[in-house]
Amino acid sequence: MNAQAVQTKPTSENPLEALSSLLETDMKAVNAAIIKHMDSPVALIPQLATYIVAAGGKRIRPLLTLACTSIYGGEMARAHGLSAAVEFIHTATLLHDDVVDESEERRGQKAANLIFGNQASVLVGDFLFSRAFQLMTADGSLGILKILSDASAIIAQGEVMQLATTGNLSTTMDDYIEVIKAKTAALFAAACEVGPVIAGADKSAASAMAEYGLNMGIAFQIADDALDYDADQDALGKTIGDDFREGKMTAPVLFALAQADEEERAFWTRTLVEKNQQDRDLAQAQEILNRHSALKRSLKLAEEYGEKARLALAEAPDHNLRALLDALIPYTIHRGS
Amino acid sequence: MNAQAVQTKPTSENPLEALSSLLETDMKAVNAAIIKHMDSPVALIPQLATYIVAAGGKRIRPLLTLACTSIYGGEMARAHGLSAAVEFIHTATLLHDDVVDESEERRGQKAANLIFGNQASVLVGDFLFSRAFQLMTADGSLGILKILSDASAIIAQGEVMQLATTGNLSTTMDDYIEVIKAKTAALFAAACEVGPVIAGADKSAASAMAEYGLNMGIAFQIADDALDYDADQDALGKTIGDDFREGKMTAPVLFALAQADEEERAFWTRTLVEKNQQDRDLAQAQEILNRHSALKRSLKLAEEYGEKARLALAEAPDHNLRALLDALIPYTIHRGS
Repeated sequence: MNAQAVQTKPTSENPLEALSSLLETDMKAVNAAIIKHMDSPVALIPQLATYIVAAGGKRIRPLLTLACTSIYGGEMARAHGLSAAVEFIHTATLLHDDVVDESEERRGQKAANLIFGNQASVLVGDFLFSRAFQLMTADGSLGILKILSDASAIIAQGEVMQLATTGNLSTTMDDYIEVIKAKTAALFAAACEVGPVIAGADKSAASAMAEYGLNMGIAFQIADDALDYDADQDALGKTIGDDFREGKMTAPVLFALAQADEEERAFWTRTLVEKNQQDRDLAQAQEILNRHSALKRSLKLAEEYGEKARLALAEAPDHNLRALLDALIPYTIHRGS
Repeated sequence: MNAQAVQTKPTSENPLEALSSLLETDMKAVNAAIIKHMDSPVALIPQLATYIVAAGGKRIRPLLTLACTSIYGGEMARAHGLSAAVEFIHTATLLHDDVVDESEERRGQKAANLIFGNQASVLVGDFLFSRAFQLMTADGSLGILKILSDASAIIAQGEVMQLATTGNLSTTMDDYIEVIKAKTAALFAAACEVGPVIAGADKSAASAMAEYGLNMGIAFQIADDALDYDADQDALGKTIGDDFREGKMTAPVLFALAQADEEERAFWTRTLVEKNQQDRDLAQAQEILNRHSALKRSLKLAEEYGEKARLALAEAPDHNLRALLDALIPYTIHRGS
């Protein structure tokens, strides 16, 4: 139990920062576990792993595990190792996502891959994935091994499903939700569910936290997919248009496609199916999305999942971390604004 | 306990076929488990998995698990699922091995990768790897989860180590042994060790079988690396020269390099370091290897590890499967002849 988490009040309006601040001691332990377990006598492994883990950003998944463990009064020392395992699974999927296909080598390449090569990215991903299972095995809970090995299989299936929908204009919104549920939300769900399981809470607590994580993850990914077309992000100097260049069928495109006239449909066919793109095309895509309020409608869809997350979270015991997990929902959806 | 395995006599001089025949009922159950667990609603997954698993060949690793379980009187039903897990880990590493690096795309590409693309190979590998851990978790032995998650991490480290030694003429024979111990022999060791652990045999039994598997695996890989330069294999229509084209520092090359004159050293530098290869170069490499008896010396090195495997195996109880595992050692080393 993290005494600090119960006593301190959130000091920031950004719930992610507030979570990091309340769970600072625990996050330090998680980071120490991450650094310790990505070490290897094979120098390229910590080199590449440090590069990608350092670039990994906000550590939202380990924070979810820590918060959900603390809310249910679970042993934080166990949560440290398992949070590191969750982050390793996430990092492995990031590395494997970046592997470039022969057919796609003309597009802008991702950093780790560009620097270290496809093979190193794949193998270091495998290493981190194995390490995740070593950490879970050392923890010794078969229940948690089941949650995270199930999530891992679902993630891989989601990624393969995404390959099949890419550049496919007949992709439905249901297909899209199924893809992001698997590729993103399953790990959010698992990260949250681990908390009450560590605490030995009952099944309904585990289900509620899994439900919170799943819907948070779906909302998170829809918002992410909207941001990839967001002019404001562009103005902030952030990279946008990755999904467009890759021909991914995301929520904004699906909303626009449903209302597309013949000319717009021809545009999406040329750019996403035939991958024949010119310099002005991203701006043109943004105009079309704007015409159909596609980003706004995407965020509205994200809010619907956010509402489901909120309802599930209400099952958890009253706790200042629960309030922050609640505040995290709108923050996740509207982080672009 | 497999009654059939105890009663039937080996009917073939090929110990691998004799093992398959004695363990036929069990291997059918393993194959059924493999087919069942590589299924997925995402069609590309069973497509690609079937392709690679079907091409996977002799199933030597699952046979080792089955034999070592049976020798110690372990529950064969458990061995079926765990043998499938071992084969999934092997298949995942095969798929990930085939991922082509940008820098190497000129060389002949491997089949699965060529047909399905880098990304699909990586993701289906991840799926099979996850499935392996789901199978182990369902089995419920933390001891076995430890053996196989440790082996998985070691394999990934070995593969990264190999990347670092490729095209590096200062690679020593010790470096090479370390690489193949990790990338190949660790999974052979784990596959064998699982048997006595299923049976609840004592630690010394598990160590002896791990030692047998480890040294068998080293011998297997050295022999494999010799075969890749073997003119007789070429005459049989089998692909040779893959390691040469990739610049891998394998036993035959290391034996030849140790005795290389200036001209030969220049040849290895041009072909393996600079990867500047012409049509006649593989034949030239074979001539140089022949000049230094490099294949013969490689097989002699393999025999040294085979002898260690034999000694470790002698610790196991007397059993007709033990006799076949013993016969498997020279067969593995001399399978090219």
